[in-house]
Amino acid sequence: MGEFELIARFFDRPVRRNPLGIGDDCALLQPAPGMQLAVSTDLLVEGRHFLSTVDPRRLGHKALAVNLSDLAACGAQPLAFTLSLALPQVDAAWLGAFAQGLFSLADAHGCELVGGDTTRGPLAINITVFGEVPAGQALLRSGARAGDELWISGTLGDARLALEAFRGTVSLPQEVFEAARQRLEQPEPRVALGCALRGIASAAIDISDGLAGDLAHVLRRSGVGASVALAQAPQLLAATRAGLRLDPQQVEELVFAGGDDYELAFTAPAAQREAVLAAAQRTATPVTPIGRIEAAAGLRLLDAAGQPTQRAFGGFDHFGAV
Amino acid sequence: MGEFELIARFFDRPVRRNPLGIGDDCALLQPAPGMQLAVSTDLLVEGRHFLSTVDPRRLGHKALAVNLSDLAACGAQPLAFTLSLALPQVDAAWLGAFAQGLFSLADAHGCELVGGDTTRGPLAINITVFGEVPAGQALLRSGARAGDELWISGTLGDARLALEAFRGTVSLPQEVFEAARQRLEQPEPRVALGCALRGIASAAIDISDGLAGDLAHVLRRSGVGASVALAQAPQLLAATRAGLRLDPQQVEELVFAGGDDYELAFTAPAAQREAVLAAAQRTATPVTPIGRIEAAAGLRLLDAAGQPTQRAFGGFDHFGAV
Repeated sequence: MGEFELIARFFDRPVRRNPLGIGDDCALLQPAPGMQLAVSTDLLVEGRHFLSTVDPRRLGHKALAVNLSDLAACGAQPLAFTLSLALPQVDAAWLGAFAQGLFSLADAHGCELVGGDTTRGPLAINITVFGEVPAGQALLRSGARAGDELWISGTLGDARLALEAFRGTVSLPQEVFEAARQRLEQPEPRVALGCALRGIASAAIDISDGLAGDLAHVLRRSGVGASVALAQAPQLLAATRAGLRLDPQQVEELVFAGGDDYELAFTAPAAQREAVLAAAQRTATPVTPIGRIEAAAGLRLLDAAGQPTQRAFGGFDHFGAV
Repeated sequence: MGEFELIARFFDRPVRRNPLGIGDDCALLQPAPGMQLAVSTDLLVEGRHFLSTVDPRRLGHKALAVNLSDLAACGAQPLAFTLSLALPQVDAAWLGAFAQGLFSLADAHGCELVGGDTTRGPLAINITVFGEVPAGQALLRSGARAGDELWISGTLGDARLALEAFRGTVSLPQEVFEAARQRLEQPEPRVALGCALRGIASAAIDISDGLAGDLAHVLRRSGVGASVALAQAPQLLAATRAGLRLDPQQVEELVFAGGDDYELAFTAPAAQREAVLAAAQRTATPVTPIGRIEAAAGLRLLDAAGQPTQRAFGGFDHFGAV
């Protein structure tokens, strides 16, 4: 199968929302009047971002999900995406499953594939995603203010727990493992929540490299700090809620520095608490207030006595050790 | 050097034309009222699209140039781009040179880096480029009509000639080799010409996989055919013009199926001939009429007697043999 047949067979679908899709030198997008175009791109490389044994259907889902998660963090409504694919060989069964996972998530979000590139090479997937957001209303990392409450969506650390199970550093009951594996391999981007938080949240980021590391970006860009109680960690990890007992320090590590969560961390003025809860309810997304933004720079992790304690959470650096 | 330091040191530059650049979950673009956004993406993999020994400055240039060439083929004015980079290791000298080549071309076209992703992995570069084009005025592959003239910009086949010299299948005088190598490693996208042809050309494509193969896309999508005289081949190859003598069939192969040319092939009504020449002169881009669009489907290569002759030019398929 050649390059053009591969594209025609697995990826060329008519566009409805965008003026021009696959098949010309460029695709054409037309944001509605008054809208800005939000753009994000993520590169996934085998062995670094996914295991070679992963179900291609889940991989197709995840490759788009991690990008949609960036749109969610900006409060942007998905519109279109491009896909670049380097493949070691053309495997029709693999491609069919990959495309199924990809388009299933894309269709759920009304996000159309408008272009791309395919070539032979070590397995790598690069998706660039486009969303619309009313001009001036995008949620930025720089908007957090002292006094704001700090929130997260969903639960944290379970994806990393699955990765540790794959690596053999923890042993999990089958049910816990399957739930955690689902979080690792098939994250659900919080697009509806992100859009519902426009005009309510003061800042937002998606948690991909671990809460502590990603939160640090928000704090730095906003010129503020935050305090978060470590004691909340067990309740923020779904596996603990489901009854799994782990060493407390391990739970804290998973929750604050696990990575691959694709939840939103966001801030909002205390006066917006009801509006945040209403947005969460409207979009059927659990949210939890986990701390408070303060004027003094830095992230303070508080012990049981409410005192700041030292922890070296690194977050996930794609050039550092995992 | 970690991921964030790498980005800050080599790639994070303030944006002027776009509302938001690097450093948040998304970049923000705002096409002017009445403009559509043209989007294209190209993935370059070491060993397939470039040699491991290539000067990183030239590689940075080429990675963006091949994308700008797609904008040129649509008649779109460059606006912004994203860069995804998989690197086997962090080599500051290599990155500095790569960034220099990249930004030098980007600045020449007013095209801003607004986002990206970096990770460790086998060397691969994915750029997605964004341009503006007035709604409804993009040059498409589907607009060629019987009676139109078929044009190309610049010269064809020299990039492939350099590749063959690297492979040892031809031996070239030093001067010819250097000129051909420049075409292979540092192509100049025909952006000014593409934009000048809006409202004049009926269809356009950029020649990346070889003239015969890329022209076939235009003919198929336009529902037409074309006739081109093979005898023009020597004059379309810069090396021949410079005095190099090659086997005639080899010259035809280079010109019609060389690949990596990044010239424009475009069609225009015969009545637009003066307008085409004026656009070419205004943008200091040589153009040559090489044939005519006809109602009968298919590309007819004409021999010296003006009779169609059979040639099996494959064009460049990224999953076929090179």
